[in-house]
Amino acid sequence: MFTKQELIDFCNNARENYLAHISIDCVVFGFHEGQLKVLVLKMKNEEAWYLPGGFVLKNEPIENAATRILKERTGLDEIFLQQFHVFGDPERSRPHRDMYKDMLPASENWFANRFLTIGYYALVDFVNAMPTPDQHSILCTWRDLDDMPALELDHSVILKTALDTLRLQLNYQPIGYNLMPKEFTMPELQKLYETILGKKLDRRNFQRRILGFGILKRSEQPRKGGAHKAPYLYSFDLENYQEALKEGLKSGW
Amino acid sequence: MFTKQELIDFCNNARENYLAHISIDCVVFGFHEGQLKVLVLKMKNEEAWYLPGGFVLKNEPIENAATRILKERTGLDEIFLQQFHVFGDPERSRPHRDMYKDMLPASENWFANRFLTIGYYALVDFVNAMPTPDQHSILCTWRDLDDMPALELDHSVILKTALDTLRLQLNYQPIGYNLMPKEFTMPELQKLYETILGKKLDRRNFQRRILGFGILKRSEQPRKGGAHKAPYLYSFDLENYQEALKEGLKSGW
Repeated sequence: MFTKQELIDFCNNARENYLAHISIDCVVFGFHEGQLKVLVLKMKNEEAWYLPGGFVLKNEPIENAATRILKERTGLDEIFLQQFHVFGDPERSRPHRDMYKDMLPASENWFANRFLTIGYYALVDFVNAMPTPDQHSILCTWRDLDDMPALELDHSVILKTALDTLRLQLNYQPIGYNLMPKEFTMPELQKLYETILGKKLDRRNFQRRILGFGILKRSEQPRKGGAHKAPYLYSFDLENYQEALKEGLKSGW
Repeated sequence: MFTKQELIDFCNNARENYLAHISIDCVVFGFHEGQLKVLVLKMKNEEAWYLPGGFVLKNEPIENAATRILKERTGLDEIFLQQFHVFGDPERSRPHRDMYKDMLPASENWFANRFLTIGYYALVDFVNAMPTPDQHSILCTWRDLDDMPALELDHSVILKTALDTLRLQLNYQPIGYNLMPKEFTMPELQKLYETILGKKLDRRNFQRRILGFGILKRSEQPRKGGAHKAPYLYSFDLENYQEALKEGLKSGW
């Protein structure tokens, strides 16, 4: 919560610099130790959790705004970032619109406006991301997808929609380059798919299908050090991967 | 082009009723006689073509705004309508921003604002749609996809993005219910897919794959009247079709 002076300063600054009525919210996915993780922020002075987000500068392309917001929250530049939906219900930001209504008249209160929010999802390198709070928050941290806190506003719906989108996109788009380490075994990649889909997949079908996409390269050397038969290591064939991102996977029409 | 008084009236009305900075543009697809068609508007007094579009009322959910705009342009209520992308480059509406700059100062000129536009695509029943111009246009009409006029602003990019989205979605979503007549032959449905994809498909593979989705029912009676072997008629199994729309096609992970 802002003090009155902080609120006035914030609103003056926002009106001067940002496009009215538009915000951006980001669902940032990372993958670590077999868990799909989501970046969340905890507000100052409140037991309230949010997705990372922000506003669009008056002359800023919206993609740049999303990239800027994610760089501020993760320190990362090279992020796979994709717009997936605009959430435009007039009631979606109601709790914010009422929050400061005793401090400032609606005409001066940035938060009293209706905001459409543009949802982006990002797939990021968990190991190199440095979660960093924003001015409203005290904590920015990863949470396991199956252990998420309750999220404010419609942020749970935004997260669910991002996940639904990702699940459908597994059918026509490659995934994994920003989420997996450089080299990985077939079971490790299968675990990523299973985590996103929320269900077990058959080992042989998975291997046959994913190899059929033509986006993987197998190393000559199996992984070292295991006691039993060492598993083969794979990496992404980036040229084919990028082409499949543009043109769709080979399994398509 | 507006006269000055028309412009002033329009801007006053727009400022009072619509959300600033947001517009909606619709790519309306119909299918008729083996051609994919797109609904376009021709401006009054100008050789300029646009996609149908409009603005969002201050308290209107964006989906309702898109439905309202499409009802005004087609007379249809029950339309398959899907948001697909927000176009948010600050320069995208530059030609409009400059259009009336000699008539009104930017602060009073609705068109001088930056607009993000939310792209929706719609699949509509060609036979029952009644193309109807809006207040800026003299003509609302269908054009074949392969015979489109040059479109103003970024509307060609919006059309291309809608088409790219539709092509990818063919891989995980059923299509056709709003585009095909109630009963159709396998070659007629294949023609729809080929028209959207812009390429020929193998007849046997198409039939095997589309039947594998489990969304078609075959009539007992073949089509009457042909001289040679009469083709079987199919219709969509609406229950399975709706489920596939929600859950993705069976061919998925």
